[in-house]
Amino acid sequence: MTSLTTWVPGVEADSDFSIFNIPFGIATAPRDSNPHMVTAIGPYILSLKCVLGDAGAESILPCLKGREDIFAYPTLNAFAELGRDVHRQLRSSIQELLSVDTNRPEVLKDNVMLRKAALIPISDVKLHLPMKIGDYTDFYAGYHHAFGVGSMWRGPANALQPNYIHLPVGYHGRASSIVVSGHPIKRPVGQIVVDPTAEPKQPTVAPSQKLDIELELGCLIARGNEMGTSIDVDRAEEHIFGYVLLNDWSARDIQNWEYVPLGPFNGKNFGTTISPWVIMPEALEPFRSRGIDIEGRPPLQDYLDGKRADSLFDIKCEIDLTISRVSTNNLIWSFPQMLAHHTLGGCPMRTGDLIASGTISGTKPSEYGSLLEMSGGGKEDIVLDGTGARKFLEDGDTVTLRASCGENWKKVGFGECTGKVYGAHTGQARRQDQ
Amino acid sequence: MTSLTTWVPGVEADSDFSIFNIPFGIATAPRDSNPHMVTAIGPYILSLKCVLGDAGAESILPCLKGREDIFAYPTLNAFAELGRDVHRQLRSSIQELLSVDTNRPEVLKDNVMLRKAALIPISDVKLHLPMKIGDYTDFYAGYHHAFGVGSMWRGPANALQPNYIHLPVGYHGRASSIVVSGHPIKRPVGQIVVDPTAEPKQPTVAPSQKLDIELELGCLIARGNEMGTSIDVDRAEEHIFGYVLLNDWSARDIQNWEYVPLGPFNGKNFGTTISPWVIMPEALEPFRSRGIDIEGRPPLQDYLDGKRADSLFDIKCEIDLTISRVSTNNLIWSFPQMLAHHTLGGCPMRTGDLIASGTISGTKPSEYGSLLEMSGGGKEDIVLDGTGARKFLEDGDTVTLRASCGENWKKVGFGECTGKVYGAHTGQARRQDQ
Repeated sequence: MTSLTTWVPGVEADSDFSIFNIPFGIATAPRDSNPHMVTAIGPYILSLKCVLGDAGAESILPCLKGREDIFAYPTLNAFAELGRDVHRQLRSSIQELLSVDTNRPEVLKDNVMLRKAALIPISDVKLHLPMKIGDYTDFYAGYHHAFGVGSMWRGPANALQPNYIHLPVGYHGRASSIVVSGHPIKRPVGQIVVDPTAEPKQPTVAPSQKLDIELELGCLIARGNEMGTSIDVDRAEEHIFGYVLLNDWSARDIQNWEYVPLGPFNGKNFGTTISPWVIMPEALEPFRSRGIDIEGRPPLQDYLDGKRADSLFDIKCEIDLTISRVSTNNLIWSFPQMLAHHTLGGCPMRTGDLIASGTISGTKPSEYGSLLEMSGGGKEDIVLDGTGARKFLEDGDTVTLRASCGENWKKVGFGECTGKVYGAHTGQARRQDQ
Repeated sequence: MTSLTTWVPGVEADSDFSIFNIPFGIATAPRDSNPHMVTAIGPYILSLKCVLGDAGAESILPCLKGREDIFAYPTLNAFAELGRDVHRQLRSSIQELLSVDTNRPEVLKDNVMLRKAALIPISDVKLHLPMKIGDYTDFYAGYHHAFGVGSMWRGPANALQPNYIHLPVGYHGRASSIVVSGHPIKRPVGQIVVDPTAEPKQPTVAPSQKLDIELELGCLIARGNEMGTSIDVDRAEEHIFGYVLLNDWSARDIQNWEYVPLGPFNGKNFGTTISPWVIMPEALEPFRSRGIDIEGRPPLQDYLDGKRADSLFDIKCEIDLTISRVSTNNLIWSFPQMLAHHTLGGCPMRTGDLIASGTISGTKPSEYGSLLEMSGGGKEDIVLDGTGARKFLEDGDTVTLRASCGENWKKVGFGECTGKVYGAHTGQARRQDQ
């Protein structure tokens, strides 16, 4: 590998998309309105369809000979199916082309026409859902979140159910309502019990008054497994295409009434937002972590006990509404462990399936990943700079999640995962803009 | 409509596929190995690709002019998207062509060549999953089942959670492991607590020892709704493409340990079997029902209170392993109500999404829809004719669900929903044969 400084102008020291990142996404641009595969570098997207699709990937990446079609597809699924070796090689090849010391300056660096066509300011393009997501699973691996929320509902002594430290607790989510960053989120109507002390309980149907966010990390599946087989925890990383930020919007009042005994349903299925850029595992490699210590944790079952103890990442996340900062270190299970558990009974993963971590919280209010925790279960006001105080989200609120590792021209950022809340009775539904 | 007696030979009085049925499915045949759209009549499939695809649907069904492609697709999704009016018209046109008094005998009845090509014994074809299923939701509307299982786990006084009579309780299921009737089911490995009295609880990893079945009715979505909108209960039937039988295989020991607080996960996601034929709502129209009376049931919320009180069906179902017989009447919520509830907060349905009823049980052991109930929570033997006694499924067991309405040449049957259990450690996984 040549020196990793890029010749692309405008890449700042704190850019999310340094040459050490090279995420993949799907965009439409003013000159190409068909969704196609792109990467990001500093303030630009680089059209891979433009650089590798038409010109032919062959001379740059022989393993993609005859597969130049993948750069023109409207999702990353076909590329993800090619397997992790191909992903790694493509990422390295792009880094080489973007390096000041590239061995092939004629391809892009010194090719004024192609640079002009392929490098487009991010602000000029529209980013789309990166993959066609078949199934979506939401885990509950944020240890401090599970403890905090459990304490609120059942007291500290019974905060964590007995199964919590033995297996990654999770549930199947709704795939059809996953949207990309920027898509507005309508406040859901649902059945709500306004007076929890009245007996018998009497629900009413109304817009949620406890609309919340959940800061989560998501992973997208590269190649799946066949039904009836399971994924070995030590092979699980080869099934992970990459990572995104995820906001698991939650209506706490709807959820609280509906969730026994089969889990969350309408309290979650009205919308889930993911960031548009799939961050490659190689970009996160320097930020591997062993996670937090949990006192009295019992030995792991063999199928969860991978050879690598550092299968988590130390990714610094933040919520931009109430300003919370927390690291993904606070998960009790890693994605390889979640995959090994999910497939233990033979459940098949498919390319593009989405697995989310569960809400990531630290131990202090400034590290909480949901308003439920910040407001002490909706009891205390959360005071915001400039926009007043609240316990849960108000119509018109915009929530932005950000996450990154590293610094000084080596930053690996996730970009934004953002959504604006609009009222339950705001005329007709906004059109889905993706 | 001309007389509804068919000229097709071999249609018996008790045939599932009378001329009053006309279900849709996807098949491959000896002479056409590309999956394509078919219907069933008596002991035959009728290739709609053969009759309407090449010959052109136009002369038979003008509304399908230019859409003859749909008969050659490997799923029914494109057809389902055309909407209920088209489905109704196609079903009527097929009934007309198959009637002894058809006005167009030259099309099929007297066309020896086409009859030979298009009418193929069911035993000679392979039936496939009828639709590409994006999301799968499993409700819990089997009242007697919910009461029976709840009594076992929490006693009769707390059998039903307070929310149960107010809303259709349900959870998101796993779409990737839905298979068509006939696909073998591997006994899942999972975390199990063998001694529930020991404290702290100590799980082990082993093949499930409490593998069970759940007899359910499923519905498949025709046209969906846009995110942020909801489906009106009085318009919900127009969103339902048709119905299938469903076996929600369940590993009770895995489920029992994992399911708090977020619901079933690995106890369910190893496999779900559906019958291959999508039964049209028109075929079930004569069997509409108001369902069972539930004492002290509170008034319905407006969004669940449809104009039609008879939005359930009286479909007689049976389980062929232990011989149970029960009617779908025993559901507390209808599919229109489930759809109205599912979309209340704006959750979007998509064509092909699958919604299941939950286990259907009556009040007597001979009407139970799961072994859990038949064995009194795994405490008592279920005695079978010829194959001994058991509490849960054994390796090698084949479970077949059947369901039908009507009789005497007017029967509307669902066909079989069948699966054979094989051992958790049976070498490599069987290949998925669809």
